[in-house]
Amino acid sequence: MSETRRTEAFSDGVLAIAITLLVLDLRVPVRATLEGSLADALGHEWPAYAAYVTSFLVVGIIWVNHHAVFELLAMVDRIALFLNLLLLMLVAAIPFTTSLFAEYLTAGGARARTAALVYSGVMLGMSVAFASLYSYIGRHPALLAPGVDADAVRGSVVRFSVVGLALYLLTVVIAVFSAPATLIAHLVIALYYCFRQTRATG
Amino acid sequence: MSETRRTEAFSDGVLAIAITLLVLDLRVPVRATLEGSLADALGHEWPAYAAYVTSFLVVGIIWVNHHAVFELLAMVDRIALFLNLLLLMLVAAIPFTTSLFAEYLTAGGARARTAALVYSGVMLGMSVAFASLYSYIGRHPALLAPGVDADAVRGSVVRFSVVGLALYLLTVVIAVFSAPATLIAHLVIALYYCFRQTRATG
Amino acid sequence: MSETRRTEAFSDGVLAIAITLLVLDLRVPVRATLEGSLADALGHEWPAYAAYVTSFLVVGIIWVNHHAVFELLAMVDRIALFLNLLLLMLVAAIPFTTSLFAEYLTAGGARARTAALVYSGVMLGMSVAFASLYSYIGRHPALLAPGVDADAVRGSVVRFSVVGLALYLLTVVIAVFSAPATLIAHLVIALYYCFRQTRATG
Amino acid sequence: MSETRRTEAFSDGVLAIAITLLVLDLRVPVRATLEGSLADALGHEWPAYAAYVTSFLVVGIIWVNHHAVFELLAMVDRIALFLNLLLLMLVAAIPFTTSLFAEYLTAGGARARTAALVYSGVMLGMSVAFASLYSYIGRHPALLAPGVDADAVRGSVVRFSVVGLALYLLTVVIAVFSAPATLIAHLVIALYYCFRQTRATG
Repeated sequence: MSETRRTEAFSDGVLAIAITLLVLDLRVPVRATLEGSLADALGHEWPAYAAYVTSFLVVGIIWVNHHAVFELLAMVDRIALFLNLLLLMLVAAIPFTTSLFAEYLTAGGARARTAALVYSGVMLGMSVAFASLYSYIGRHPALLAPGVDADAVRGSVVRFSVVGLALYLLTVVIAVFSAPATLIAHLVIALYYCFRQTRATG
Repeated sequence: MSETRRTEAFSDGVLAIAITLLVLDLRVPVRATLEGSLADALGHEWPAYAAYVTSFLVVGIIWVNHHAVFELLAMVDRIALFLNLLLLMLVAAIPFTTSLFAEYLTAGGARARTAALVYSGVMLGMSVAFASLYSYIGRHPALLAPGVDADAVRGSVVRFSVVGLALYLLTVVIAVFSAPATLIAHLVIALYYCFRQTRATG
Repeated sequence: MSETRRTEAFSDGVLAIAITLLVLDLRVPVRATLEGSLADALGHEWPAYAAYVTSFLVVGIIWVNHHAVFELLAMVDRIALFLNLLLLMLVAAIPFTTSLFAEYLTAGGARARTAALVYSGVMLGMSVAFASLYSYIGRHPALLAPGVDADAVRGSVVRFSVVGLALYLLTVVIAVFSAPATLIAHLVIALYYCFRQTRATG
Repeated sequence: MSETRRTEAFSDGVLAIAITLLVLDLRVPVRATLEGSLADALGHEWPAYAAYVTSFLVVGIIWVNHHAVFELLAMVDRIALFLNLLLLMLVAAIPFTTSLFAEYLTAGGARARTAALVYSGVMLGMSVAFASLYSYIGRHPALLAPGVDADAVRGSVVRFSVVGLALYLLTVVIAVFSAPATLIAHLVIALYYCFRQTRATG
C-alpha cells in the first residue's frame, strides 16, 4: 500500500470509530433511581438525540470530503501528514463536544453558551485544519496524482475552504446568542453538504 | 478504491465497531457494594445477556445483507450515500437501544413497554432505511454493476423489503403487549435470517 | 472482495476492537476520593493488569489462528458464516469477562470461583465455536481453496481442536479450586500458543 | 493478503482504535452537580486536553514509524509477531496512562510523580518493544523485502532505537522531578518526531 492509501485507511478507521463512539453519549436512565415514566425520561433527553443526529451527519460529511481530497493525491509529505493528524485530532474530539453540548443545551445562560461555543469552536478548528491541508496540497502540485489539474484544485480550494470556514464561523457567532439555534445551524449545514457537495462518482 | 468500495469499507468499520460496543452493555457487579452471591447477581443480569446475543445476531445479519446489496452496485450517488448514512446512524444506535431494553426488560408495565417500543422502533427505522436504499437502487439501473439484472433486483427489493418491514412492524405490535416476547421475536427473526437469507457464495 | 475475504476483514475488525476495548477495564483511581498513595492504589489493581495482559495475548492468538483457518478457504456458506458469528460473539464478550475476573480475582471463596468459571467458560465456549467452525470446514472440502489437502485439514482439525478444548476444559476445572491459578493457566496457555502455534509465513 | 500485510492491517486497526479511545478521557462536567461557571469547570480540565493532544501525537507517530518498519518486511516469523503483539499491548494501554496522568498532573507530590512515572514508563516500555522488534528484524535478513539493504537497516536500527530509548528514558528521569515538565517533554518529543522522522514518500 502506498503512503497515501495507508494514510487514507488509517483516517477512515479513526472517522468510523469516532462516528460510532457518538452512541456512548446516549445514556440509559438508571432503573433504580428513575422517577416518573421512562417515556418522559427519554423525552427529556432529546438534546442528546438531536446532537447525535447532527454530529453523525457532520462526521459522515467529513469522511466524504476527506476522501475527495485524498483522491487528488499521489503522495503525502511530512507537512500533509501532520495537518491530517491535526484534522483527525479535532474530529476524534467530536464525541466529547457532542456530549458536552447535549448536557448543557437546555441549561440556558452562560453555560449553554459555553457548551455551544466549544462545539462550534472545535468544528471551526476542524475546518481550519481541513482548509490548511487542502490549500497546502493546492500549493504543492508535486503531491497531486497524474491528470489532476493543479489550477482547478487551487480554484476549488478557495471555494471549498472559504465556504466551510465562513459557515462554521457563523455558528460561532450564533453560539453567542442561542445554543439551540447553534445546533439547528449545524444540522442545516450538514444537510446542505449532504445534498450539495457529494457528487455522484463510480 | 472506487467510491462504492470505500463506502462499503467505511460501513463495515461502523458495523464492526457497533457490534463490538454491545459488550459495554454487560456490566460487572461492583465488588464493594455486592450483597449475596456473585452467581445470583450475574444471573439477575440475564436480560443483558439475552439482549447482547440478540443484537449481536441482528447486526451480524445487517452486515451480511449490507454486503449483498453493495455487491450489486457499480457506483453510488449522493442520495444512495445519504440513505446509507441514515442506515448506519440507526445501526450505530443499537448498542444504546440494547442497553435500554436490557435495563427495563423485567421492569414491567409502561416502562418495559417503552423500552421494547424504542428497541423495535429503531429496528423498524433501520429496516425502512435499508428498504429505501435498496428500492432506490432498484429504481436507478445506472448504479448497478454490469451483468446485474435490474428486473431481478426490483423483484427481490419487494420480497426483501416487504418481509423485513412486516417482521419489524410485527415486533412493534408485540412490544405493546410484552417486552420479553418482543426480545424473543427479535431473536427468532435473527435466527431465521441467519439460516435463510445467507446464501453460499465464493 | 470475495465473501471469504470480506468475512475475514469484518472478523479482523471485531477482533481489533475487542482487543483494544480491554483497556477500558483499567481504571484510574478517582483523585477526590483517593486515600493513601497512588502507587499503593495502582498496586492494589494488579489483578486488572494481569487480566489485561492475559486477555490481550489470548485475543492476539485467536486472531492468528482465525487467519490460519480462513487462509484454507475459497468460499464460505451460511453455516460457516453463522459459526464464525458465534465465535466473534464469544470473543467480543472477553472484555466483559476480563473485567469481571479482575474485579473478583482476589475476592476469595465462591465469588472468585464464579468469576473464574465465567472467564474460563467463555473461553471454552470460544474454543467450541472455533473447533465447530474448523471441523465443519474439514468435512466440507468444497469450501477449501485449490491446493489445500482436505485430508491434512481433517488431521489438523483433530489435533488443533482437541488440544484447545482440552486446555480450556482444564482451566474450567482449575477455576473450581483457585481463581489466581486459573489466570496463570490462561497466561501459560497463551504464551505456549504464542511460541508454538504461530508459524513463520510470508 | 500476506501474513505481513495482515499483521500490518490488524496493527493499524488497534492503533486507530487506541488513538480514538483517547477521547473517552475527556469528561463532561455533570450539570446537576456543577457549581460555578462551565467555562471555569472546563478550564480546570486543561490537563486532560494537554494529555489528549500529547498522546494523540505520540500514537500518530507510532503509527507512522510502525508502517515504516513493516515496509521493510517480506515476511514475519513467530518472534516478530510476538514482539509486535507486545508493542500493541503497550500502545493499547496509552488511553489508560493518559487518563491517569491527566487526573494527577496537578495533584503535586508523590501522586503526580507516580502518574508521570507510569505514563513515561509505559512509553519507555513501548519504545523497548519497538526497538526489540526493529533490531530483531535487522538481525534476520531473511525477513526483509527484496531490495532492502540489511546493512542499512542495521545502521538505522541503532540510530532509531538508541534515540527513542534515550528520549523516553529521559522522560522517566524528568518524571521524578516534575509531572508538568514530563508532559511538556513528551509533547516536544512528539513534535520533534512529527517534523523530523516522517519522510516524504509516495
